[in-house]
Amino acid sequence: MDVRDFLRVKRDGGRHPAAAIRDFVRDGVSGRIPEYQISAWLMAAFLRGLDGEETRALTEALTDSGQRFDWSDLGRPTADKHSTGGVGDKVSLVLAPLVAACGVAVPMVAGRGLGHTGGTIDKLEAIPGYRTRLSPEAMRRQLETIGVVVIGQGPEMAPADGLLYGLRDVTSTVRSEPFIVSSIVSKKVAEGAGTLVYDVKCGNGAFMRTLDEAHHLATALVDTTRAMGRAAAARVTDMNQPLGAAVGNALEVRESVELLRGGGPGDVHELTIELGVSMLRTSGAERSAEAARQRLQQALDSGDAWSRFLALVEAQGGTRAPSNATAASECSVVLPVPAARAGWVTSIDTFALGRLAVALGAGRRAKEDAIDPRVGFVMRVRLGDRVEAGQTLAEIHTAEDRPDALAELAQSITLGDEQVEAPELIVERID
Amino acid sequence: MDVRDFLRVKRDGGRHPAAAIRDFVRDGVSGRIPEYQISAWLMAAFLRGLDGEETRALTEALTDSGQRFDWSDLGRPTADKHSTGGVGDKVSLVLAPLVAACGVAVPMVAGRGLGHTGGTIDKLEAIPGYRTRLSPEAMRRQLETIGVVVIGQGPEMAPADGLLYGLRDVTSTVRSEPFIVSSIVSKKVAEGAGTLVYDVKCGNGAFMRTLDEAHHLATALVDTTRAMGRAAAARVTDMNQPLGAAVGNALEVRESVELLRGGGPGDVHELTIELGVSMLRTSGAERSAEAARQRLQQALDSGDAWSRFLALVEAQGGTRAPSNATAASECSVVLPVPAARAGWVTSIDTFALGRLAVALGAGRRAKEDAIDPRVGFVMRVRLGDRVEAGQTLAEIHTAEDRPDALAELAQSITLGDEQVEAPELIVERID
Repeated sequence: MDVRDFLRVKRDGGRHPAAAIRDFVRDGVSGRIPEYQISAWLMAAFLRGLDGEETRALTEALTDSGQRFDWSDLGRPTADKHSTGGVGDKVSLVLAPLVAACGVAVPMVAGRGLGHTGGTIDKLEAIPGYRTRLSPEAMRRQLETIGVVVIGQGPEMAPADGLLYGLRDVTSTVRSEPFIVSSIVSKKVAEGAGTLVYDVKCGNGAFMRTLDEAHHLATALVDTTRAMGRAAAARVTDMNQPLGAAVGNALEVRESVELLRGGGPGDVHELTIELGVSMLRTSGAERSAEAARQRLQQALDSGDAWSRFLALVEAQGGTRAPSNATAASECSVVLPVPAARAGWVTSIDTFALGRLAVALGAGRRAKEDAIDPRVGFVMRVRLGDRVEAGQTLAEIHTAEDRPDALAELAQSITLGDEQVEAPELIVERID
Repeated sequence: MDVRDFLRVKRDGGRHPAAAIRDFVRDGVSGRIPEYQISAWLMAAFLRGLDGEETRALTEALTDSGQRFDWSDLGRPTADKHSTGGVGDKVSLVLAPLVAACGVAVPMVAGRGLGHTGGTIDKLEAIPGYRTRLSPEAMRRQLETIGVVVIGQGPEMAPADGLLYGLRDVTSTVRSEPFIVSSIVSKKVAEGAGTLVYDVKCGNGAFMRTLDEAHHLATALVDTTRAMGRAAAARVTDMNQPLGAAVGNALEVRESVELLRGGGPGDVHELTIELGVSMLRTSGAERSAEAARQRLQQALDSGDAWSRFLALVEAQGGTRAPSNATAASECSVVLPVPAARAGWVTSIDTFALGRLAVALGAGRRAKEDAIDPRVGFVMRVRLGDRVEAGQTLAEIHTAEDRPDALAELAQSITLGDEQVEAPELIVERID
């Protein structure tokens, strides 16, 4: 292919035929096209955009650059959920074994924390011994026996996405919807689930700050996934405060265990059920929302979800009793953050809280940073709550005294004189 | 500097401070900024544009990346002319010694052919022995003694422009006015002439096809050159037919010799005098156009220009009698191109003629191609001429029989039933 012609088309706002995108990605991955031409295209496509058909072609090319798993002969429906990233979002840890307990297999390939957000793989690694890599054979065996796998992305899956993402990162072309959509969907399609449900976070702790952006992304994710031959649905959900109370890897595992045993914060429970209903219905396992909801709740109440979680952890090499294991690795320092005044919780700077978690050591500032699984914080208030002066707003778990973190957390929570309504958790449903 | 922030600014249509452009170019040349970030910026700047101040800053940064010559202590004004490139444009060969003969030193750094256009350095190399590289000391001595130097660009002049041009070429970002302006002006400023006169070609044989584009470029060249502290003027001139009759390196040297000896085609003579007048006036050597014109014509008539040319060729190692030397290297095959019908010459596809010259071997399709200095063609008709069937339209000079070239040349000249007016040569003056 003549890369200069290809660049000229997008530079001038034209459309690429699917075959041209396929060739460009193939030759980019093989090294036949140098990075300086790929990055020029990324900038042109960032500024000129890609339409739905081009996005589908890019997604297909990224998927085809690596291995594709196929679970169609597993004898039961398969489904997965992907979240665009938030603070305190431990839903995957609960949802994967829960949906598996309802008869839908979950071949989940999850990610690490990105920026101010947490990642499922970092959370699972807070369980001593948990292996986040499995061979395709081990994956299949585990899906056949316990119906659930949660692993990290290996280099064999959509390697072209890794190349493009690396160049997007250094050329300030990350935040382009077609790039975001093709990156997410290519990996999910390669993973092989027949149904994909997207949780698009929206608010001051999400990458999508406005409902308009979140709605647009959710629609594009669903459209592109369907164009790739998979069933899809999406939920736009609120991220103007952390999800649940715990933020930090071991703390979130602990909260997930509470949820799996029938307790835990109401919002995480509500969202988990919401996404579970969507997975059961979209994959055809249940017809009605009400039946799906009952089946999920029963799997929680009966202990099936909890034992499925224990089986998952055991199958992937983790400690048999993760709740005890994480309890054993608790932080020595727990700093309560007191309210400076009485008032109503009117806003929570969730982005700042996410960055605070990273600064405490729960996430990475650079790729090579190590994570301390113990650190983080537990929120004790939510939007719309009434608090008295001196009341504990949150507790910081840290290895050392951190007055800076204390001040930062207190500043992230605004107390006002007028009550505000708590935001709706489920903002939009796309089925 | 944080290159990602720099890229984000231009991506979003913002303005770069001059210092940011300076740092970006400096770190790009030193290799601290990788090519994939430079090329992403090229695409962003191509699509978002650079304003006059950014163009000036880029020009300054390109100039400062290499050596700057300074002829301010030479004891006489210095001036140079730059053409944006056309077909049959041998003006520099005549103009440089002519202006030197009028007391204005010409430290000319000229280029090679680009695309379908010819280049002064390729033409001079048709003179056996002519050296296109000189040491700074030799340049100074020659400017002091004979007042004229014509050399090619060395790697010590604006090396950052070479880097950017190479990346522009492979990322389809060549044709951006701020890039074109900064590339031209940076080299001209580095060369050290106090006055710069631009000949912006316009028409079907030029890079600028429309008067609007040409006018805009001419204005930007003059503005940027003045912002860099040099005197400047520009002429927009017609390139809807080859300039003069000869196209091809040795053929053009021969025509230049005719001009220097008082003969040659009227249009080359007119344009040479026009640009010479502008150089003499803009550099302050003459006040009135009429006085400048007379002085130039007298230097031609007296033989001063011709002997200055011979001194230039001798000083740079060329054969003492270039007209004989090129006559000795004439092609054995000269193919007359007959008119298929009677009519008026209504249009000439000058771009096709330029490509034909390259195809014959007068230019390069790839960097490493060798040039045959002998080949080319001589036009025998001009726009608006009346021709009879069978009359010779042009003569092709080639080393072998080339019926394809014959057909191509004939097709480039359209004969119609109605007379058209010959275009004005000087389209616009910017002083």
